[in-house]
Amino acid sequence: MKQFTSVYDVENIDELLKTALEIKANPFAQQEVGKNKTIGLIFFNPSLRTRLSSIKAAYNLSANVWVLNAGADSWTLEMADGAVMNGDTQEHITEAIKVMSAYCDVLGVRTFPKLVDRDEDYNEVMFNKVKGLSSVPVVSLESATLHPLQSFADLITIAEKSGYTPGEKSAKKVKVVMTWAPHPKRLPQAVPNSFAQWFSKVDWVDFTVVQPKGYELDAKFTDGATIEYDQEEALKDADFVYAKNWSSYENYGEVIPQDKDWQVTMEKMDLTNKGKFMHCLPVRRNVVVADEVLDSDTSIVIDEATNRIFSAQTVFHEILKNK
Amino acid sequence: MKQFTSVYDVENIDELLKTALEIKANPFAQQEVGKNKTIGLIFFNPSLRTRLSSIKAAYNLSANVWVLNAGADSWTLEMADGAVMNGDTQEHITEAIKVMSAYCDVLGVRTFPKLVDRDEDYNEVMFNKVKGLSSVPVVSLESATLHPLQSFADLITIAEKSGYTPGEKSAKKVKVVMTWAPHPKRLPQAVPNSFAQWFSKVDWVDFTVVQPKGYELDAKFTDGATIEYDQEEALKDADFVYAKNWSSYENYGEVIPQDKDWQVTMEKMDLTNKGKFMHCLPVRRNVVVADEVLDSDTSIVIDEATNRIFSAQTVFHEILKNK
Amino acid sequence: MKQFTSVYDVENIDELLKTALEIKANPFAQQEVGKNKTIGLIFFNPSLRTRLSSIKAAYNLSANVWVLNAGADSWTLEMADGAVMNGDTQEHITEAIKVMSAYCDVLGVRTFPKLVDRDEDYNEVMFNKVKGLSSVPVVSLESATLHPLQSFADLITIAEKSGYTPGEKSAKKVKVVMTWAPHPKRLPQAVPNSFAQWFSKVDWVDFTVVQPKGYELDAKFTDGATIEYDQEEALKDADFVYAKNWSSYENYGEVIPQDKDWQVTMEKMDLTNKGKFMHCLPVRRNVVVADEVLDSDTSIVIDEATNRIFSAQTVFHEILKNK
Repeated sequence: MKQFTSVYDVENIDELLKTALEIKANPFAQQEVGKNKTIGLIFFNPSLRTRLSSIKAAYNLSANVWVLNAGADSWTLEMADGAVMNGDTQEHITEAIKVMSAYCDVLGVRTFPKLVDRDEDYNEVMFNKVKGLSSVPVVSLESATLHPLQSFADLITIAEKSGYTPGEKSAKKVKVVMTWAPHPKRLPQAVPNSFAQWFSKVDWVDFTVVQPKGYELDAKFTDGATIEYDQEEALKDADFVYAKNWSSYENYGEVIPQDKDWQVTMEKMDLTNKGKFMHCLPVRRNVVVADEVLDSDTSIVIDEATNRIFSAQTVFHEILKNK
Repeated sequence: MKQFTSVYDVENIDELLKTALEIKANPFAQQEVGKNKTIGLIFFNPSLRTRLSSIKAAYNLSANVWVLNAGADSWTLEMADGAVMNGDTQEHITEAIKVMSAYCDVLGVRTFPKLVDRDEDYNEVMFNKVKGLSSVPVVSLESATLHPLQSFADLITIAEKSGYTPGEKSAKKVKVVMTWAPHPKRLPQAVPNSFAQWFSKVDWVDFTVVQPKGYELDAKFTDGATIEYDQEEALKDADFVYAKNWSSYENYGEVIPQDKDWQVTMEKMDLTNKGKFMHCLPVRRNVVVADEVLDSDTSIVIDEATNRIFSAQTVFHEILKNK
Repeated sequence: MKQFTSVYDVENIDELLKTALEIKANPFAQQEVGKNKTIGLIFFNPSLRTRLSSIKAAYNLSANVWVLNAGADSWTLEMADGAVMNGDTQEHITEAIKVMSAYCDVLGVRTFPKLVDRDEDYNEVMFNKVKGLSSVPVVSLESATLHPLQSFADLITIAEKSGYTPGEKSAKKVKVVMTWAPHPKRLPQAVPNSFAQWFSKVDWVDFTVVQPKGYELDAKFTDGATIEYDQEEALKDADFVYAKNWSSYENYGEVIPQDKDWQVTMEKMDLTNKGKFMHCLPVRRNVVVADEVLDSDTSIVIDEATNRIFSAQTVFHEILKNK
């Protein structure tokens, strides 16, 4: 693996899943790969799971790891090419990334969208700038439009919970429904875009996206998925319900008033095929999902978060093993 | 050891002290116990000694360690059960702790009291919530009412300085006096509660607490100690003087005006049996204690701070050795 | 090596350079020296390169490392001796440094100048206080007047790029010109002082400092260097151009208006002997130096930053090898 920025950096999803399950079963068996390697993690935005699971993944591999909170820990960064830097910014992103990538073997980077200019976000201007400047392979810790380490962890979780074994033909497809859910803030589309991008490519999954009108994701990510607008209809027979809020792609970054209650409740979970509840976290309790769901056995959100270790560890392993 | 939240998690204080002295004498000899283990440290409040000594303790054991400054490094946490999270809080403590404990083998947690509602603080509502949510053993890095890693380090220090050998009968008891001292701010009772809880259980120590009227600690911690109100009288023949400020337990969190000067000076130290001066640090110089004391050989505050490494290392060792 | 605070802590510059080149060629070969050792890094000021390169250097040596952002991570520090600490400061620097040095084997410290009282800064009051309190060897991560890890990295870079081999007589001296350059803020003199202090002692280098009138550095650092005031004249035949802004030493901390444009441009680089452009970073683009220079092969600023790993690793190695 040369980098990990989307599902397109994965040669064979099923093979990668197999490797992840092997690594999870024996997490300290790959330390020769990590020895004397250093993983650098740069956060332009806050993080809990991604920060700690990536650190744990590095530790499992016996790799070294450093974390930089861009802004707080270092100098104020200038992003504009050609800028005459006689103002507040102290260092250009060009030098910052070239230097930081000189201090590690893999560079993980988190860059959130601004949700102002769709083209800027969807062209991944910031993330691609970092990627272009890095002298080492780059791993997305969530970019403006994608969060592939999360989607890969979700895939591991769904495989485990549904009993899917990589390489085997399953008798019946697993039904996975990603449902939009309410939220008080304007959120990026990165997690749902990425989930759709991965799960529309998994041949043992029957994948549905359901959202209110106006919340359709960019079609390039949902291509191959069933698109629904009736949440209750979509949830029928679901084996996995993946809840997530996102702001509008069409009216970019907007929150559209809509009268229907899309919160995931136990009543709605009862429509499913004893479906499991999933969410990438952090989750707004009693807004996105009711306590009764999160606090029941129906919820597998902690399993997902735990698998973030193994999605990161597998990716770091695949990148480092050829170095 | 299953957890370390108070002296009651210690089966045999003398045995634990013996282990600590052995570990200190040979600090890199237990690395098989720490290998491939990860210690997570969550700080809801600032820390210098606890942070760095716990990190050093992990390193001595060859364990991995991560630190999270809750709030600064991650999402804003919601503490209330049943909350409808449509406001400023981004993640519920429930998910935060479950997830963080999935990324480590031992979870160290610091939660200070609010000093507003005594029942809330003395029921350790916040700390117990974290403990109840963690899937791995929890170590107190100071809770609302206790600071057992500090007390254990103080025990190691007093044993070393008095020449006590675990398991041996000492001819004469060591006199330890904990004295209240002035301070400009309202401080928790965690350090003195914990010190009293430990030292009233050490059979080779004669333990006295002295404070102005109105500053009596919760009797459940000082049970077994001699309680005095005259500082000079109490200091007579003391082998160790442990100074600390705390706010009132009775008038909870209050600072009561009192005209007597309780600062520890060399004149007062001269009343003791060539007693050593102790303080958990940080200490307000020339308020709690005079420079002349801190800067003399009488002071063993740096020894105490150094022993924080070995109290933490011993506790991590005892918890991890059975995992 | 007992400490590393200036070039005067180096017994033999050429020998140290030789060691650095050997370490760079084989960076993981000295891990016996770092094993079970801990390097503590305290930052009283922001840092990117120094922080990460020192961490990487520790990792290369298999040493442990902790980082403390003084202020943000810990208690508010009192600096004044004899202070009655009944105000905002929570811990005295005396205890803080004694304790932190108890938790490591080498202590790296960054303390910037205040640029108010020249005597205070040039007597290195703050840095020397820390050094005097530390119980372990101290390494400067930049002090009020010097930045020796940077200068040593610059020496490694110039040796590599000029083909100099330690111990060999070179046929012709390498011409190194350090030029003042414009900047919107008042900057310390630490980097140029230190560069001058090192390069005026390197016998295979012909060293020139050029600056506008009023920007002369303290003569004790530039002793042995050629001092010029005409930038274009000075740049002629230069093999290396080291650009840096600094505020006035004479009118201490002042920025003196001056009409000449001292920005380093490609036109100016064309005056040199195909000279390489150097800067310690962070650099203000199009203020200190034009994009056209930084973005060309003329620039070796990333090489310098990369060599920060090996200057730190060599220094840590030399200090730790005798412990």
